[in-house]
Amino acid sequence: MNTKSPLAPKRFPRLPEVAGVSLAAGACGLRYKGRSDVLLATLVPGSTIAGVFTRSLTVAAPVDWCRSALKGGRVRAIVVNSGNANAFTGRVGELAVQDTVKSAAKVIGCPKNQIFVSSTGVIGEPLPVDRLTKALPRLKKKLSPKSWRAAADAIMTTDTFPKGATRSAEIDGDKITLNGFAKGSGMIAPDMATMLGYVFTDAKIAQPVLQQALRAATEKSFNVITVDSDTSTSDTVLLCATGQARHKKVTSVGDPRFKNFRQALESLMVDLAQQIVRDGEGASKFIEVTVTGAASNTAAKTIALAIANSPLVKTAIAGEDANWGRIVMAVGKAGEKADRDALDIRIGGIQVTMDGLRKPGYDETPVAQHMKGEEIAISVDVGIGRGKATVWTCDLTHGYIDINADYRT
Amino acid sequence: MNTKSPLAPKRFPRLPEVAGVSLAAGACGLRYKGRSDVLLATLVPGSTIAGVFTRSLTVAAPVDWCRSALKGGRVRAIVVNSGNANAFTGRVGELAVQDTVKSAAKVIGCPKNQIFVSSTGVIGEPLPVDRLTKALPRLKKKLSPKSWRAAADAIMTTDTFPKGATRSAEIDGDKITLNGFAKGSGMIAPDMATMLGYVFTDAKIAQPVLQQALRAATEKSFNVITVDSDTSTSDTVLLCATGQARHKKVTSVGDPRFKNFRQALESLMVDLAQQIVRDGEGASKFIEVTVTGAASNTAAKTIALAIANSPLVKTAIAGEDANWGRIVMAVGKAGEKADRDALDIRIGGIQVTMDGLRKPGYDETPVAQHMKGEEIAISVDVGIGRGKATVWTCDLTHGYIDINADYRT
Repeated sequence: MNTKSPLAPKRFPRLPEVAGVSLAAGACGLRYKGRSDVLLATLVPGSTIAGVFTRSLTVAAPVDWCRSALKGGRVRAIVVNSGNANAFTGRVGELAVQDTVKSAAKVIGCPKNQIFVSSTGVIGEPLPVDRLTKALPRLKKKLSPKSWRAAADAIMTTDTFPKGATRSAEIDGDKITLNGFAKGSGMIAPDMATMLGYVFTDAKIAQPVLQQALRAATEKSFNVITVDSDTSTSDTVLLCATGQARHKKVTSVGDPRFKNFRQALESLMVDLAQQIVRDGEGASKFIEVTVTGAASNTAAKTIALAIANSPLVKTAIAGEDANWGRIVMAVGKAGEKADRDALDIRIGGIQVTMDGLRKPGYDETPVAQHMKGEEIAISVDVGIGRGKATVWTCDLTHGYIDINADYRT
Repeated sequence: MNTKSPLAPKRFPRLPEVAGVSLAAGACGLRYKGRSDVLLATLVPGSTIAGVFTRSLTVAAPVDWCRSALKGGRVRAIVVNSGNANAFTGRVGELAVQDTVKSAAKVIGCPKNQIFVSSTGVIGEPLPVDRLTKALPRLKKKLSPKSWRAAADAIMTTDTFPKGATRSAEIDGDKITLNGFAKGSGMIAPDMATMLGYVFTDAKIAQPVLQQALRAATEKSFNVITVDSDTSTSDTVLLCATGQARHKKVTSVGDPRFKNFRQALESLMVDLAQQIVRDGEGASKFIEVTVTGAASNTAAKTIALAIANSPLVKTAIAGEDANWGRIVMAVGKAGEKADRDALDIRIGGIQVTMDGLRKPGYDETPVAQHMKGEEIAISVDVGIGRGKATVWTCDLTHGYIDINADYRT
């Protein structure tokens, strides 16, 4: 395994139980030796599920399955393996998904369309599905409401630390818990980041409402992070609600009782998304790019991503070089309206440009000091309108190349 | 200076004289020590000029000037400096251009709008224009019809070798010469590659015809190369025709006498564009990506660029890893129609995929052998239509990060 990212949180958070959710992780030897690589999560009958998926046009077989199963809106179990993405594996890949779903449905005792599967790892290798299905009965015996950390560990690939988060919210005075875990490190870009994410709650929420809440929170979290601009074939985020809380069911996304939950969900997903950036392959700096003054929020996001994805901006930050000229370049290449002579670029809050050139009397010393830190803040006002967006990324270092030049060997 | 690229041509080609063109290079100490950094090229009265420029929305002051001067369609001199891009320098930058143009017009004895200027190097630093203007009388005395290599040397920034090419064509049985030189290494992407390019010919060509020929050749050369997907603020290609040849003037782009010239021009510009890729920052492999079977030529180019710009594809190639799953990923993220189950991916001409999965009996040995070479060929048929495109790029190595993490220091 690679060295732990210097940007990793101090520790994995303590995740409380979520009524109706049990987890088990194990090793079935798909690719890795001496570590877990399969996760089984089960939910009580009646649990609802929402999902968002990659926009790749070469999606993996498990994503095809989840999209179809989601129509039922119910979930009893999620099976995830790491080490093999079961992507671009053709008919063999579809059969592997069918085998997994069939075995899991039998072990759990539920209809097949209440089983969701994800696979992450190498693309194009047939999945040795027997090892996975054989592990399921064993995993069922190990199920526990406490195994959150083990679950987060089992789904990692090039991740250097497991990613988890928890929040609570109130509905009708009832305390609701939200737990989530995710994986992702490379092949990260909207839409979506290359990642798998799973969020569980005991709230009682109608499926369409759950879906709307998930989609909205994704736009503010997993869809505004980028590591390398590459889009995975397997990106999946699932949100499951067991309905074990006592409050009256939420049936409308506009329900004022639901606001607190939506905020908690967005906060949890932003936390997980930022952890993914902090584990960006080879990352040594966490970068927040904020664009204001754009023609629209969409234009602002396009400009912010042009900056966040620019290899020249990312390498300059890796070198702790306050090369703001490359930010000017990235704004220019984004293709969205920007007023060159009104550009206001700030690094670490310090204004660098004014009236179309370097600010008179600009002193690089405090900016250079900011560049030495682990958290870099870039903000750009493009002087056109009121559109704004914030995206998160990391720098581009030798570590990225080390990891990716020989991923398969 | 950085070590010469392993992909560099053996030597700079021998460029013959072009009737009506003289060149001089010198050192005026703008940034570099112990090397030339300014070029003066002069042309006989009556010479016509065509130009294409960056599509960046934060263009440098010299580009603004050239766009405006191009309306006159005539050229007597081109002044180029390296080391400072005079980009994002506001009113001061415009004044620097005005000073340069005024001085050059006086030295040459011509109207100001027959002087063209380019600057390349760091963005955002004021150009010490006095050093440049002071050098002009000295350069005028050094003018020679033979100084092609010196000209190509003077405009380099992070380039590790000077880039030149020559072709000849026949018009009315008259032998026409085309000479060109260019610079570019990083911040290279359509449209255009970050680069400066200058082509000179003794042909007699009406300005609108020259402009159409340049634009068409650019689409097949500088607009289909990418190093790092970043777009420069300064990209400029100028094509000048002195009209010193004896043939009757070409006044229509469809003129059959002109076909041979257009082919020679495209061939010369493809040569220069490929040299830029061969000098891509840190490049160790030259990569040709061909996409066929797309919905349109534009769709094919989008897919080809998605592959060519993917950091994961580029790092895999740097590591000599035949990780074709990443090509599948890049096709999927391009957003253009592709039939996953009909994808035909070939590396070094060897078919890797068939019917939506790895080709049965696929033997990686010859592909791995191909990956060890310096010239990598990737072709993908996406199984939709008849659109096709070819783009050129290089791999992403530690060298790129070394060069760009501390460019300004």
